[in-house]
Amino acid sequence: MIRVGVNGYGVIGKRVAYAISKQDDMQLVGIAKRNPDYKAKLAIKKGFNVYSSGDPKEFENSGVGLSGTLQELLGKVDIIVDATPEGIGKENKALYEKAGIKAIWQGGEGHSISNLSFNAYANYDSAIGARYARVVSCNTTGLLRTLFPLQKEFGISSVNAVLVRRGADPSETKKGPINALEVDKHIPSHHGSDVNTVIPGLSINTVAIKAPTTLMHLHAVTVELKKSATKDEIIELYGRYRRIALVSLKDGVNSTAQVMDIARELGRGDGDMYEIAVWKEMKAEGNKLQYFQAVHQESDVVPENVDAIRAMCNVEKDSQKSIDKTDKSLDIGV
Amino acid sequence: MIRVGVNGYGVIGKRVAYAISKQDDMQLVGIAKRNPDYKAKLAIKKGFNVYSSGDPKEFENSGVGLSGTLQELLGKVDIIVDATPEGIGKENKALYEKAGIKAIWQGGEGHSISNLSFNAYANYDSAIGARYARVVSCNTTGLLRTLFPLQKEFGISSVNAVLVRRGADPSETKKGPINALEVDKHIPSHHGSDVNTVIPGLSINTVAIKAPTTLMHLHAVTVELKKSATKDEIIELYGRYRRIALVSLKDGVNSTAQVMDIARELGRGDGDMYEIAVWKEMKAEGNKLQYFQAVHQESDVVPENVDAIRAMCNVEKDSQKSIDKTDKSLDIGV
Amino acid sequence: MIRVGVNGYGVIGKRVAYAISKQDDMQLVGIAKRNPDYKAKLAIKKGFNVYSSGDPKEFENSGVGLSGTLQELLGKVDIIVDATPEGIGKENKALYEKAGIKAIWQGGEGHSISNLSFNAYANYDSAIGARYARVVSCNTTGLLRTLFPLQKEFGISSVNAVLVRRGADPSETKKGPINALEVDKHIPSHHGSDVNTVIPGLSINTVAIKAPTTLMHLHAVTVELKKSATKDEIIELYGRYRRIALVSLKDGVNSTAQVMDIARELGRGDGDMYEIAVWKEMKAEGNKLQYFQAVHQESDVVPENVDAIRAMCNVEKDSQKSIDKTDKSLDIGV
Amino acid sequence: MIRVGVNGYGVIGKRVAYAISKQDDMQLVGIAKRNPDYKAKLAIKKGFNVYSSGDPKEFENSGVGLSGTLQELLGKVDIIVDATPEGIGKENKALYEKAGIKAIWQGGEGHSISNLSFNAYANYDSAIGARYARVVSCNTTGLLRTLFPLQKEFGISSVNAVLVRRGADPSETKKGPINALEVDKHIPSHHGSDVNTVIPGLSINTVAIKAPTTLMHLHAVTVELKKSATKDEIIELYGRYRRIALVSLKDGVNSTAQVMDIARELGRGDGDMYEIAVWKEMKAEGNKLQYFQAVHQESDVVPENVDAIRAMCNVEKDSQKSIDKTDKSLDIGV
Repeated sequence: MIRVGVNGYGVIGKRVAYAISKQDDMQLVGIAKRNPDYKAKLAIKKGFNVYSSGDPKEFENSGVGLSGTLQELLGKVDIIVDATPEGIGKENKALYEKAGIKAIWQGGEGHSISNLSFNAYANYDSAIGARYARVVSCNTTGLLRTLFPLQKEFGISSVNAVLVRRGADPSETKKGPINALEVDKHIPSHHGSDVNTVIPGLSINTVAIKAPTTLMHLHAVTVELKKSATKDEIIELYGRYRRIALVSLKDGVNSTAQVMDIARELGRGDGDMYEIAVWKEMKAEGNKLQYFQAVHQESDVVPENVDAIRAMCNVEKDSQKSIDKTDKSLDIGV
Repeated sequence: MIRVGVNGYGVIGKRVAYAISKQDDMQLVGIAKRNPDYKAKLAIKKGFNVYSSGDPKEFENSGVGLSGTLQELLGKVDIIVDATPEGIGKENKALYEKAGIKAIWQGGEGHSISNLSFNAYANYDSAIGARYARVVSCNTTGLLRTLFPLQKEFGISSVNAVLVRRGADPSETKKGPINALEVDKHIPSHHGSDVNTVIPGLSINTVAIKAPTTLMHLHAVTVELKKSATKDEIIELYGRYRRIALVSLKDGVNSTAQVMDIARELGRGDGDMYEIAVWKEMKAEGNKLQYFQAVHQESDVVPENVDAIRAMCNVEKDSQKSIDKTDKSLDIGV
Repeated sequence: MIRVGVNGYGVIGKRVAYAISKQDDMQLVGIAKRNPDYKAKLAIKKGFNVYSSGDPKEFENSGVGLSGTLQELLGKVDIIVDATPEGIGKENKALYEKAGIKAIWQGGEGHSISNLSFNAYANYDSAIGARYARVVSCNTTGLLRTLFPLQKEFGISSVNAVLVRRGADPSETKKGPINALEVDKHIPSHHGSDVNTVIPGLSINTVAIKAPTTLMHLHAVTVELKKSATKDEIIELYGRYRRIALVSLKDGVNSTAQVMDIARELGRGDGDMYEIAVWKEMKAEGNKLQYFQAVHQESDVVPENVDAIRAMCNVEKDSQKSIDKTDKSLDIGV
Repeated sequence: MIRVGVNGYGVIGKRVAYAISKQDDMQLVGIAKRNPDYKAKLAIKKGFNVYSSGDPKEFENSGVGLSGTLQELLGKVDIIVDATPEGIGKENKALYEKAGIKAIWQGGEGHSISNLSFNAYANYDSAIGARYARVVSCNTTGLLRTLFPLQKEFGISSVNAVLVRRGADPSETKKGPINALEVDKHIPSHHGSDVNTVIPGLSINTVAIKAPTTLMHLHAVTVELKKSATKDEIIELYGRYRRIALVSLKDGVNSTAQVMDIARELGRGDGDMYEIAVWKEMKAEGNKLQYFQAVHQESDVVPENVDAIRAMCNVEKDSQKSIDKTDKSLDIGV
C-alpha cells in the first residue's frame, strides 16, 4: 500500500486525490491546502484528511477540521503529488528533499525540476524507481497520447500543431479574455519542446492561441508519417488506445461542448474527460495526416499521475498493467 | 411499479430519464428520440430502450438499435414525460390523449396545456390523480423554491426579481449572444405570471436579461414580507429545505462558476445542481429581504418531474414523503 | 483658454484627452503615461504631447518622443484630469497640491478625495470655482442621467436598480469571467450610496452582478415617482435630454450589441456612446416606472469631465450653456 | 462618375456604401434594404437614399422614407454591389441580368456565380471591364493580402494555415457558440481552395476552428518559401503594403482586442481595421516562415469592393493607382 499525499487542492490536485482514493494499491493519507474554502469543505465531506500548507489559524472557526500541517503530512507518506500553482512547486522541493520522500510535480514546473518528464504511454519504464518526476502539462499530455501511437506504428517525420487554448478553467473567474483571441508570445510555443522532454528528437513545431472558453483545448495537428497510412488504419490504431476517445460529427459532436456533454453523461467523478477526444473526420493522404483533438485540461493528466506513482514506487513494472489498472479504476475507455 | 416513458431526450429529457431509472417505484420503459446522435448512443450504453419519434430509417446503419416507435412506447406506459422542444409538446397532446395515458409537459409549454402547473413544495396535492400536468420552467421553479418557504413562514406582500438568464445550455453551440446583454422583450417578463400559475394571487414582478453564459441563471430577488425577519431566521428557514443549497462568499463561492464546480464535485450524475443555490450574504431589514440565487437550468426541474409522476399516478399522497424519496434517490441536499 | 493636462491615458484618459482637444476654450497641454505602448504611439500620431509618469528611460528607444515628466506637465497646466487606475489617483493628490493646480478624479476614487462629486445635469453649480472634484463612475453617471430628470419633473419616492456589469473593458484581456455570472459582494452595492454623493437624500437601493461581456453595463431600474406618469410622458421627458438616447426593440435594438453598433456607425471618435441608451419599451403604471438602460462604461463620463473643467475654472457659470457646448463639440444627441 | 447601388445593408453592405460615398469618381445612388430597422434609419441620417428590397409596406409608418424599390434602384445604376446574406445573392443574379447592369457579389457566394474572384493586389487586371465579379471572403482576402507579396518576392512552395474564426459579428446576437471551440466540418477547410480561385495553382492547405469571440479572425500561417528570407526582410516587405498593418507584442498588442482598440482610436468610420494585422513576432528560418495575422471580418473586403468597381467599370486600368486612391479616401495605412 503506497502512502500518498497531495499538496495543493485546486483543479488538478482535487482530481488526483480522488483518483488515488480509488486505487487499491494506494492510500490517500491526506491533502494539503492553504485556505479553508469550499473545496476544503468538500474534501472533508469525502472523508479526506486535510492538512494546512499555510497558516493553520485560517482554518479555525471555518468548520474545516485540520489533521495537521503540511510538514506533518510529509512525515506520513512515501510520495507526495505536488499540484500547487506554477512556480510554488519548485519552492517546495527542499521540503520534500528534507522529508526524504518521493515527489511528483505537474507541468507548470519545468523539466529541470526532476529531469524526468513522464507520460504513461511513452516512457513509463524510465520512471520505475525514480525519486522525482514531472507529469507533463495537459497540452503536452494530449499531444503525446496521439503522437506516441503514430510514432510506434508508422514512424513520424515531423509534426506541426496549432493549439487553441482555453482562457481559464471553469472555476477561475478572474481570468480572461472575455472576447478576444490572444497570440502566444513565442513562435514556436513551448509545447513542442515540452513533448521532446518525453520523446527526445521528435521533430515537432507548435504555435498557440488563447480563446475565450473554459471547457477544453482544441488542437489542429498535422503529422508527416514515415509510412503512408489510411484514415481507417489510423482510426483502428487509435481505437486500441483506451486513453483516446474517437468522436464524430456524424453523431452531432462538432465542438468541445458536445465532448464535455458526453463526459458529464458518463457519470464519472466531476464530469471529466480523461481521454483525448479525436475526431474521426481526419484527413490521411499518403504520408500526411491531419486531425483535430480536444484536450480536457482539468483531467487528462490525472491517470498519468496515478501511473507515475506506481512506477516510481516500484509496485508495477509493466506499464500496460498499470495503465489497465488505472483505467479500470477510473472507468476510462468511452 | 409505474411504467414511465420519456419523449424527447435533450437537456431535460435525458436527466428525467436517468432520475426515473433511479426510483424503486417506477420503471423507465423507454425514451423516444428523433435522431441517432451521440445522446442516443449514450442512452443505449446506459441500458435504456430507445424508440423513434421521427423516421425510424434514420436509425438504421447508425449502430443505435431501436426498440420501436413512439406510438409503440406510448402503448406500454402509464405516463409519459414530454421533454420535446417548446411548441412540439402541444402537438403531441393528441397522441397521448389517444393512447389513453397520463402526461407531463415542461415549462416551455403554456399553463393551458394542462391547466395544472406543478411544483412539489407548493402544490403537490393538487396533482394527485391528475391526468395532465406541467412542471413549470427552470426559472419559475427557482423562484417557487425560495418564495414558497417565505410565503408559508412569514407571508409575502410583494416580490420583485431581476432574472439574468444564461444565453444557451452548455451543449447548444448555435445560440448566442457571444458578447452582449439582451433585454427581455416584455416588462414585466412572463416569469412572474408563471409563478402565479402555481401560487395564484402572489404579487410578483419580474424582468429578465440574457447574458453570454451557459452555466446557470442568476436571480436578484427582493421580497416584502408580511412579518419582519432577520437574516439568521431566513438562513435557518432555508436550511430546512433540502432543495435549497446555501452558499457563501466566505467559502470562495462568488459566481455561478463555483456553484457548478461544487455540483461537479458532488459526483452526482451529470454534475448537476438540483438545488437552488442561495447566497448567505443576503440583506434582511425589517420586512424587506434581498438575496441572490442561482438556478441550474439543466436540472432543477428533474426532481419536480419525479414527484409529479408520483402524485399523478396516486402512489404517494403525502408530498413530503415523495420529496424525501426523490431527494434520497438523487442524493439531493448538499 | 484653460490649460489642461491628463494624467493616465487608458480607457478613460485617452477619451477625455481627445474630448478636451475638441473644445475651443481649452488647450490640451499634454498627457502623462507610464509606458510607451501602442496608446502612447497613437497619442503622438494625434499630435498630443506625451509626458512620462514613470521612468522616462522606458521611453528611450521606443520611438515615442517625450515632452517631459509628469512634474513638468503639472507646471504648465491650470487643471489636471487624473485618469490613473483606482487607488493611484489618491496618491497623486499631494503632487497636485504641491503644483498649486486644480484637479479632477474619476469614480474609482472615493468621494472623500474631493468631497465634491460631480454630474453635469445634477450639480454643475456646486463645482463652480472648486479646486478639486470627482466625476462619478460610469454606472453612477448612468443612474444620475436618467434619475435626475425624473426627480426634477415628477419627484422620486424610491429607486431600486439591478446593475448587470460588464466583466472587463474591450481592451482588458486579462480580466474575466469568461463563462459565469458573479454576485457583487455587497447587498446593497455601493452604487446607490454613490448616487447620494451627488443627490443627497434620494432613497436608492442597488445590487450588482458581473457578466462575461465587454460592451456595456445594463441596468434594470424601478422607480416609485411622487406623481403618476405615463410612458409617453417619460419618453417625451427623456427626449429633451441630449445625453439620453432612446432606443427601441421595434428598430431591432434588443441588446447592448446593437446599441454599440449604432454608436460605431455614428462615426464619432472611438465608436463611443456618450449617451445613456434607454429602451422605449418601458412600463409606467400609476407612480411606478420600470425601464432598461445601457451604459457605455468607456465613454459616458467623458462629457462630464469636460463640463467639470469648465465649471471649476469658472469660464461658464450656466450649466446648460456648458452642456450645449460640450455636446456640440462631441456630436452628442443621437 | 460611376453610378453605384448597394443591395443589402448589413455588416458588409453598410460599410461598402459608406466607402463608395467617399470616392470622387463614384456616386452612391442608393442602398436597398429589406426592413426599416435602425440601420435604415442611420442610412437616412447619413443622407443615403433607401430602396426597399422586400415589402415596401413595412417601411410605411416606420419613419424611414423610401426612394423606391430595388427594381427602381437597379434602373438607375451602372453597377450593383450585392451584400445580401449567403445564398440570396445567387437568386438576385437574374435581376441584375435583366437590368443589364454590372454586379459584384461577396464571398458568401461561390466562385461560379461570376467565374471571376477578385483581390486588388493579386488580380486587379483580370477584372478590367468585367461584367460580374466576386470579392472573396474576409478570410480569403486576409490570406491573399499577406501571401501575394510573399509569392511575388520569394515564391511560395506551400502554405499551411489554421484559421480561428470569430463565432459571430458583434451585432449578430443570435449566433454562438458562447463557450466552446467548434471544428470546421471539412479537413481541409474551403478557404485554401478559395485562395486558388484568385491565385490558381498555389499549394495551400487550411483548417478552421470557430471560437466564442466577435472581434476578428486569427490565422496561424506557415509558409514554405522558394527562397530563404529573414524576419527583417519579411517585415520590410510587408511594410511596403499599405493594407497590411504590422503590430507588436512590444507595444502591448497581444490579442485581437488591442488590434481593434487601435482601429477604434484611428477614428475612421465604424472603428474598422481595413488592414490585415500581422505580428512582427514572426519566425523566419531558412525557407520557412511562420506568422500570426488578425483579420477584421467586418471591413477588410471594403476597399476590395471599391477597387473592383473601378476595374470593372473601366475607369482606372492601373491597379496601383486605384489602390492608392481607395486607400487615401479611407485613410488606410496605419
